[in-house]
Amino acid sequence: MKQGILFVMSGPSGTGKGTVCAELLKNKDNNLFLSISTTSRNIRAGEIDGVTYNYTTPEKFREMAESGCMLEWAVYGGNYYGTPKKSVLERLDRGENVLLEIDVQGALKVKKAFDDAVLIFIVPPSTEELRRRLESRGRENEDQINERIKAAEFELDNADKYDYIAVNDDLASCVESIRAIMKAEQFRARRNTEFTERLKK
Amino acid sequence: MKQGILFVMSGPSGTGKGTVCAELLKNKDNNLFLSISTTSRNIRAGEIDGVTYNYTTPEKFREMAESGCMLEWAVYGGNYYGTPKKSVLERLDRGENVLLEIDVQGALKVKKAFDDAVLIFIVPPSTEELRRRLESRGRENEDQINERIKAAEFELDNADKYDYIAVNDDLASCVESIRAIMKAEQFRARRNTEFTERLKK
Repeated sequence: MKQGILFVMSGPSGTGKGTVCAELLKNKDNNLFLSISTTSRNIRAGEIDGVTYNYTTPEKFREMAESGCMLEWAVYGGNYYGTPKKSVLERLDRGENVLLEIDVQGALKVKKAFDDAVLIFIVPPSTEELRRRLESRGRENEDQINERIKAAEFELDNADKYDYIAVNDDLASCVESIRAIMKAEQFRARRNTEFTERLKK
Repeated sequence: MKQGILFVMSGPSGTGKGTVCAELLKNKDNNLFLSISTTSRNIRAGEIDGVTYNYTTPEKFREMAESGCMLEWAVYGGNYYGTPKKSVLERLDRGENVLLEIDVQGALKVKKAFDDAVLIFIVPPSTEELRRRLESRGRENEDQINERIKAAEFELDNADKYDYIAVNDDLASCVESIRAIMKAEQFRARRNTEFTERLKK
């Protein structure tokens, strides 16, 4: 059985990577499944345990993290968020591809632990456009938007550590590009050594 | 202006890589152009100078090879065959993608000289199928077919030095896979550093 591929998607807040991920998952063309993160924060109205997140207590989360059960984890706003290793590896072993939507620091941790992961960075067409998108969604005030832009600059500084960079200028063409990346990665020589070995016999 | 990408296609004789290349070139989707090889052999009926090959004398070929004008070259049946560096680099500088269809030894020379080249290896679904295809095209006798199979084994031994391996089981799906590879390569992070640099400013 050929191993699945772990795809890690990151990009500055406001780039639209959530929408891109949702589009990619709609269609099972690439045999792609979203990895559900585990968090210690409380469940909110409209969220579903096991769908939005897997919810746990801070104590249990720390226990998991300390015993090496997390592929990556981080703290935001006093809550833990992390990617459980077991469910990801089980899917990959079944030949399924897994999608993680995490930040740059988490992505680089995953790459370190799991060199075979494919890191895709989604960028806005320009910082002006990023600001415009953040303003138009109206979730943040001016100060928070400036914070987001500063964070975007930090993320962009790390873009060269990714495998691919895709611009989200037009949603459909961005999704199409990422589908091509996901398809192409299946043909990487290092993922097909078993096949050529068999052929030689 | 973004540089074009050099794609190098190889695969055992009888794999159908010629047909795959012809299909890829039919449609200019990937802004792809075939590199015309230079040879010292005589022009044959039906061939066109500058289309099938660029024809030259053995003396001029040696001169070009010795002065470093060939990206790679080799001798087959007493004739020189090679890829002229200048025309390839000019196309890449214009942002066009270039396709080379050459053997494994040539491909590895190109990769050594030009690390950014993308090497794609086309394989038959099985050696039995390769033998069947060689027999059915009726160009070679039994001994020559056995030679081809032996050569295929040498080529397969080097498949892991390629970037991608695609099986030519079904022509349409093989072509589609290679189109995905060609599209995906445009989003490689190392080919998009200029863009992220501009974005940071």
